[in-house]
Amino acid sequence: MTGSVQYRQAEAVKRYDVFHTGCPARDVVDHVTSKWGAWVLISLRSNDLRFYELRESIQGVSEKMLAQTLRAMVQDDLVWREVEPTTPPQVTYGLTEFGRDVSEPLTELFDRITRQLSPRSAG
Amino acid sequence: MTGSVQYRQAEAVKRYDVFHTGCPARDVVDHVTSKWGAWVLISLRSNDLRFYELRESIQGVSEKMLAQTLRAMVQDDLVWREVEPTTPPQVTYGLTEFGRDVSEPLTELFDRITRQLSPRSAG
Repeated sequence: MTGSVQYRQAEAVKRYDVFHTGCPARDVVDHVTSKWGAWVLISLRSNDLRFYELRESIQGVSEKMLAQTLRAMVQDDLVWREVEPTTPPQVTYGLTEFGRDVSEPLTELFDRITRQLSPRSAG
Repeated sequence: MTGSVQYRQAEAVKRYDVFHTGCPARDVVDHVTSKWGAWVLISLRSNDLRFYELRESIQGVSEKMLAQTLRAMVQDDLVWREVEPTTPPQVTYGLTEFGRDVSEPLTELFDRITRQLSPRSAG
């Protein structure tokens, strides 16, 4: 039985090293699938947004959590950040090419979930 | 400016009510994109698994967090749970049709992230 688990684990590793805590891709997966990461990617799909616009568009996120999420995503090169040297400085966020690439299956994921749930709420 | 934010919000609502905390789909999205939810869905794609097998396949998850994640996903009808009345009882988890549907774009998401990061790690 343990053998079969190990076999499956080995299969998983071949396919996704991300299952293992040492894999660099795992951090990125964790950020994308973090409590707010997915919402940030989806929010930025149609427009670049200012910090306060992002905060308004994602209900329930705190300023601190949003800042933390964005910092991680800029580091991952999923999101870019531009500061205009005005007073106060205006900060805009947008999707990088990588961020846009990753946001596509995420949109599909959201679509499938809402599609599944809408007949329920309709009756 | 606020007008434009409101316009975008209205657009977002049309597309995804899930942006709003009152939407039932938002809970499901939150579970799928929770710290461990995504890993559970991906792990169960190839095989139904026992609790301890799931725990072994997802590095870093605690027993408590995994149990909590699975409970939410069973409630969402993403995952089924079967108890065999042996001593001790054997509990198996697998993907429902909905869970399988949702796991597809998630796999694509993981693939795109690993694809992007592998050239980096290769040099």
